[in-house]
Amino acid sequence: MSAVVTEQETVREGAFGNAVALSCRECGGRVELGPSYACPDCFGPLEVAYDFPAITREDIAAGPANIWRYKALLPVPADIEESPNTEPGFTRLLEAKNLAAELGLARLWVKDDSTNPTNSFKDRVVACALSAARELHAKVFACPSTGNLANAVAAAGARAGIRTVVLIPSNLEQPKQVNSAIFTDSLVAVEGNYDDVNKLAQEIAAEEEGWAFVNVNVRPFYAEGSKTLGYEIAEQLGWRLPDQIVIPVASGSQLTKVHKAFQELVKLGLVEEKPYRIFGAQAEGCGPVATAYKAGVDAIRPVKPDTIAKSLAIGNPADGIYVLDITRSTGGAVEQVTDDEIRAGIVLLARTEGVFTETAGGTTTAVLKKLVETGQLDTSLETVIINTGHGLKTLDAVSGQVGPRATIAASYDAFEAAGLA
Amino acid sequence: MSAVVTEQETVREGAFGNAVALSCRECGGRVELGPSYACPDCFGPLEVAYDFPAITREDIAAGPANIWRYKALLPVPADIEESPNTEPGFTRLLEAKNLAAELGLARLWVKDDSTNPTNSFKDRVVACALSAARELHAKVFACPSTGNLANAVAAAGARAGIRTVVLIPSNLEQPKQVNSAIFTDSLVAVEGNYDDVNKLAQEIAAEEEGWAFVNVNVRPFYAEGSKTLGYEIAEQLGWRLPDQIVIPVASGSQLTKVHKAFQELVKLGLVEEKPYRIFGAQAEGCGPVATAYKAGVDAIRPVKPDTIAKSLAIGNPADGIYVLDITRSTGGAVEQVTDDEIRAGIVLLARTEGVFTETAGGTTTAVLKKLVETGQLDTSLETVIINTGHGLKTLDAVSGQVGPRATIAASYDAFEAAGLA
Ligand SMILES: Cc1ncc(COP(=O)(O)O)c(C=O)c1O
Ligand SMILES: Cc1ncc(COP(=O)(O)O)c(C=O)c1O
Ligand SMILES: [Zn+2]
Ligand SMILES: [Zn+2]
Repeated sequence: MSAVVTEQETVREGAFGNAVALSCRECGGRVELGPSYACPDCFGPLEVAYDFPAITREDIAAGPANIWRYKALLPVPADIEESPNTEPGFTRLLEAKNLAAELGLARLWVKDDSTNPTNSFKDRVVACALSAARELHAKVFACPSTGNLANAVAAAGARAGIRTVVLIPSNLEQPKQVNSAIFTDSLVAVEGNYDDVNKLAQEIAAEEEGWAFVNVNVRPFYAEGSKTLGYEIAEQLGWRLPDQIVIPVASGSQLTKVHKAFQELVKLGLVEEKPYRIFGAQAEGCGPVATAYKAGVDAIRPVKPDTIAKSLAIGNPADGIYVLDITRSTGGAVEQVTDDEIRAGIVLLARTEGVFTETAGGTTTAVLKKLVETGQLDTSLETVIINTGHGLKTLDAVSGQVGPRATIAASYDAFEAAGLA
Repeated sequence: MSAVVTEQETVREGAFGNAVALSCRECGGRVELGPSYACPDCFGPLEVAYDFPAITREDIAAGPANIWRYKALLPVPADIEESPNTEPGFTRLLEAKNLAAELGLARLWVKDDSTNPTNSFKDRVVACALSAARELHAKVFACPSTGNLANAVAAAGARAGIRTVVLIPSNLEQPKQVNSAIFTDSLVAVEGNYDDVNKLAQEIAAEEEGWAFVNVNVRPFYAEGSKTLGYEIAEQLGWRLPDQIVIPVASGSQLTKVHKAFQELVKLGLVEEKPYRIFGAQAEGCGPVATAYKAGVDAIRPVKPDTIAKSLAIGNPADGIYVLDITRSTGGAVEQVTDDEIRAGIVLLARTEGVFTETAGGTTTAVLKKLVETGQLDTSLETVIINTGHGLKTLDAVSGQVGPRATIAASYDAFEAAGLA
């Protein structure tokens, strides 16, 4: 996409808000803000660097009930609310007393991102990527996806009136396919797993001009959207950080950005500094980061995914090494669970808190349980788990396990006879 | 359930907030607040009457980003936020510029209730019913449902830790069945249509003690929850009323309560008084109110439903006559559309605004289109439509119509060959 913005002057003043550059996570080198994602010197991943002004809690509270309340902390223009987008975020933070009691935790919260516009946290990252695509004059808004990103890109693109092209593994769950195809006529099923689809997207991004691939060539802007999960958790806790947080890991982007958000809040004086532990959750059928964590090594060996948690099925996670870094340095861990534990996790969260999560959230809930049972999590501390997606998208994972208790005739006698009275 | 609260004194002071009585919509007679729903004198439906204190916009804005910001206007205690509930509401009000352009409307908004906790507006009414059930010491939280109410009751009951019993027609869409069964082990499929299920619920309510049927014996409290849709629309428009609003009609409760909400806001001085028109949306396969409207009669003849809009499939609508009243007196109308128009309505809303609605919202969108095409709606006025539920729950309605454009091998050549480059 670099050819889109041939002259840097065509990018308007303030297009990226308080962001000042892209900086390399490996060597610290800086490049100017644009459709770049790898360091020209060392090929390390780029991330957005800022020069933040003073920002108060009151400024934020005066904003809208969506992610734009944090616009000063994101690479978006000050007038972002005027461009069409799905207005995601500011989702519920539920105190989970029943689940806490069940697991023996002192205090537990569920950050529920299943109520976002397309029912996953991906609406957050896509809203930021869409802004970057717009400011960089992209003609096509595209992505490779494990499913939820496809939904979010297709919906946001429809609303913004930009052409979308959405690439998914051809074996994706049907609800996630329909939930993309309803918005776009350019949903493309690709034979292969996510890592194959991702490779194809990188090829296309290199070939085509004017294509913004949200998680490829505008990935630095995209990734910043996940910070809003961290901001919201802190604000909804009354402007303080939790002691422990459990986050699902696919590419690892979300986990690293929640950490970045907490660090920024401390630096800006919006919360008090304190120790916190970050835990990552994976499925055994795709646990490359958990495996590296347990082995005590720094390098991640790619795997071929085989799990019902398809949204987490990235065998070669781009941000895996940073997940290892963060979980180790904060005193957390990366844990993995079986598909049966994932199914049980979905039911457990539903029965205790009335939240129907997808397989990713089943993974997170099951990992929470396992961390408690194995003593890796301190049950006396305040804990948050992030529910990142909706159970209606992975219905088949549980549809064999739950259903009507009885089918009866429409009479009180039949009702009584079924033992329901 | 009247036997639950044997002594009125066991209901605590302030249990119903600023509500002072139940009053009959037909004769105006009053009974005390409790599990009653029919007037002892004339059998007319009861609704909640209030004695409101002065309430300012600032009081409301200082509340949480959910329906409890309006708690002073609801029959709930002042400490409602401390009891476990799903925290619904304050959903997006999206300006729908693409859909407006498509239909030739000057200004259009979509109130999107598909992002509620269980993905329909029913979370609002259930939250109010749950409060009443709790204050009245009910032991069981139950409902007959066309689907969405089942989801909301099962989820809210799980979170509140109260036993739930949820009755649905046995032919209900599978996603709605799973989305209830995931929360409760007492989902009961009943052979028959909604009206049969509803009759059974009334029998059970009369037989059992301590059962709060949300839309039967605590219906007056339940129904008040829909007022929050009206409050939110007004607040999100900047404290003013729209000119026209299109609302789907099953029992007709929601439509009548949005009207009540607008009236209350005017009386409380929170918005300026102005004329507005209310339109009702039904499916041709279940359009008893639309039929009566068009015939110019006051009585509603029950029908046997046959439509893909199962959530609207109430053949004998309890509040139908009030819908006729309100739509006629405000200068609106009640219109109906075919199943094919409903399917097209779902796709239209998705492609223009990135919102995936269920068949009820497809009905509302299609009715909006028909009202414009038949000149019943003034295109120069500001219009709001309410999207009441989520497309993931009625996937089969559109899964034959949309899907991947192509399935390709994971190579750029295949991508190019498919004409996607
Ligand atoms: C529901 C859900 N949760 C979590 C993730 C993990 O995201 P990340 O790639 O940022 O680790 C994904 C990624 O697709 C997802 O869809
Ligand atoms: C999605 C949806 N929209 C609208 C309605 C209509 O509600 P009412 O019975 O208040 O008219 C229902 C009722 O079940 C519903 O499920
Ligand atoms: Zn570098
Ligand atoms: Zn009466």
